[in-house]
Amino acid sequence: MEYEEPQFFHVMEYAAAADGDVIDMVSGNPDWEPPGAIREALAEYAELPSDAFQYPPSEGLVELREAIAARRNVDADQVVVTNGTGEANYLAMARAFERGAGSEALLMDPVYPYYPGKTELLGGEPTLVPTERDGGLDVDAVRAAASEETALIVLNTPNNPTGAVYDVEAVREVVAIAEAVDALVLVDEVYDHFDHTGSFESALTIDSDRRIVTSGFSKSMAITGFRVGYAVFPDEHVFQAKARHMLVNVAGARPSQYAVLHALRRTEPEYYAAGRELLADRIDAFTAALDEAGAEYTRPEGAFYVLARFEGFPGTMENVKRLIDEVGVAGMPGDTFGTTRADWIRFALVTPRAVEAAERLAERFGE
Amino acid sequence: MEYEEPQFFHVMEYAAAADGDVIDMVSGNPDWEPPGAIREALAEYAELPSDAFQYPPSEGLVELREAIAARRNVDADQVVVTNGTGEANYLAMARAFERGAGSEALLMDPVYPYYPGKTELLGGEPTLVPTERDGGLDVDAVRAAASEETALIVLNTPNNPTGAVYDVEAVREVVAIAEAVDALVLVDEVYDHFDHTGSFESALTIDSDRRIVTSGFSKSMAITGFRVGYAVFPDEHVFQAKARHMLVNVAGARPSQYAVLHALRRTEPEYYAAGRELLADRIDAFTAALDEAGAEYTRPEGAFYVLARFEGFPGTMENVKRLIDEVGVAGMPGDTFGTTRADWIRFALVTPRAVEAAERLAERFGE
Repeated sequence: MEYEEPQFFHVMEYAAAADGDVIDMVSGNPDWEPPGAIREALAEYAELPSDAFQYPPSEGLVELREAIAARRNVDADQVVVTNGTGEANYLAMARAFERGAGSEALLMDPVYPYYPGKTELLGGEPTLVPTERDGGLDVDAVRAAASEETALIVLNTPNNPTGAVYDVEAVREVVAIAEAVDALVLVDEVYDHFDHTGSFESALTIDSDRRIVTSGFSKSMAITGFRVGYAVFPDEHVFQAKARHMLVNVAGARPSQYAVLHALRRTEPEYYAAGRELLADRIDAFTAALDEAGAEYTRPEGAFYVLARFEGFPGTMENVKRLIDEVGVAGMPGDTFGTTRADWIRFALVTPRAVEAAERLAERFGE
Repeated sequence: MEYEEPQFFHVMEYAAAADGDVIDMVSGNPDWEPPGAIREALAEYAELPSDAFQYPPSEGLVELREAIAARRNVDADQVVVTNGTGEANYLAMARAFERGAGSEALLMDPVYPYYPGKTELLGGEPTLVPTERDGGLDVDAVRAAASEETALIVLNTPNNPTGAVYDVEAVREVVAIAEAVDALVLVDEVYDHFDHTGSFESALTIDSDRRIVTSGFSKSMAITGFRVGYAVFPDEHVFQAKARHMLVNVAGARPSQYAVLHALRRTEPEYYAAGRELLADRIDAFTAALDEAGAEYTRPEGAFYVLARFEGFPGTMENVKRLIDEVGVAGMPGDTFGTTRADWIRFALVTPRAVEAAERLAERFGE
């Protein structure tokens, strides 16, 4: 198995080395404050007796698993706390491939590039399934692609990079397809707190032993560096997932888990609402500038990315570099995200300079 | 692939449920204070601007990798900071198996049970190679076992569970054997700060593109819950190891890495010396009690475990439970650690009650 240097790094390095002032719209790090309780709890943790500095339970602090289970309305025994949502996805995908029920993963295109990367790491074979023009789930395309070879179907809602929020009824149909072909469905909901439609519904409401849901606190609490995520497994998969977690990582980091536990308890809904409002304002400003630039785009229903296509300026790596050098805005080339959006560029709105970037783009591409 | 519930949990649960007062000599958590700088740095981190709460570089904070590289006298580019030594070992073992140069792992018996567990997770086949009666490396046995099928040889020095500190010349011979059969050697040195002989020498002094060294701060800084370890890879393996690390974990926890970085800078040698002295005193007391009990044992040269064999009381799970119920001391059954020490019991000396436990054992087994 061979790996390629992720395009992500390539763009980041190029932007960092650029002469001019470049606005980073590449990385998915929230640029706002974490909940105050994160800071408070970490400072409290630093004073605890030394036994609190030793291994947490492998599957995560009991109280954290219980707090997650209560919020997600599942049994705490089904919750495995992981080293970020990234590890949660890895564990879920491994479960699908080690069952001996096929080696194909159906991934929605545009695709978050870690999904094909993890698929190949685990010995599976990715198949890209197109989504609707607006990023919505194309259930018929999933049905047409599914076969006995299918081990896994991966969904991500709210979606990176399209911003689509899937209709839970469409997700339910995909779960039924998975049941029919003896596959598992992984629904990555790490952007669940960034639903701008008000209609997002978790796949946890779908009752099936084929459905695994992952999420985490990296985005919702603006702590991507803390590495606290989780997976909710059907009963029959949780033991094997815990075993792999233990063999790979032993456990996640306890200071991080402690801070998240207390932030879950002490953070008011207003904190999350403020993040959504900030993003909604940026989406307004950014899409207005895209209108001015005559760009094609779909207004994101969730998450914090915008995919845009500029007439006569396809989103190749070469053009992304030109945008860095000539306009001072760094985005991601569309072919990072599969085959269907090779002409597009993804912009992450998690920078306080999102409006300034929008103005630069409007000036460059506007009439 | 199927996993078994680790014996570790079984013993811990049994001990926790026991009626009487039980001294835990099962788990490998240091019971002493971490360096003061760990607490200080974590409290400092809690006050940093929010961008310090976002993803660290996937391979670890640059300054931490540089600090490790300076201390280990290697190039920082070879260092990957991991989620504890456990992940470092996983990455190293994966490198061996994905090369297409065999699927067998030679593991020294007695064996740390995560090594066969990880081997099987990665699709390899573990072969146990006996060590000397005192736990020392039997180079001839390794040579006899090695073949074209051998992808990996795993060494752990100072050793868990035997306490042996391998002669670096013996390690060098094993590396030469690996070179001859196109295998990699993983040397897990997580107990490197707990060398009671003064003669431990790291395998990093062996110049070979076959040698991977792992270590971490869980034991040396008494922070098993922080999950900061690292691997030092030969140049030709580091890129692939970083790619797997990124696909599985994205990155390790930044608060933990920050605390370790500053503790590395601010902690005096006296801190580590005090831990060794504390353990040396416990080893004295514990082995004196074993003498009184008429037990067979090898005085540990490093790490913090003692393997002991009591006449007429083989170290089965049944007898380990009897020891919990009747004597109030919890150890680990010998067959946890492979085949050669099934009659033995491992005692971890990382409890302030180690001397009390020794007295209980002397009373039970003494004449």
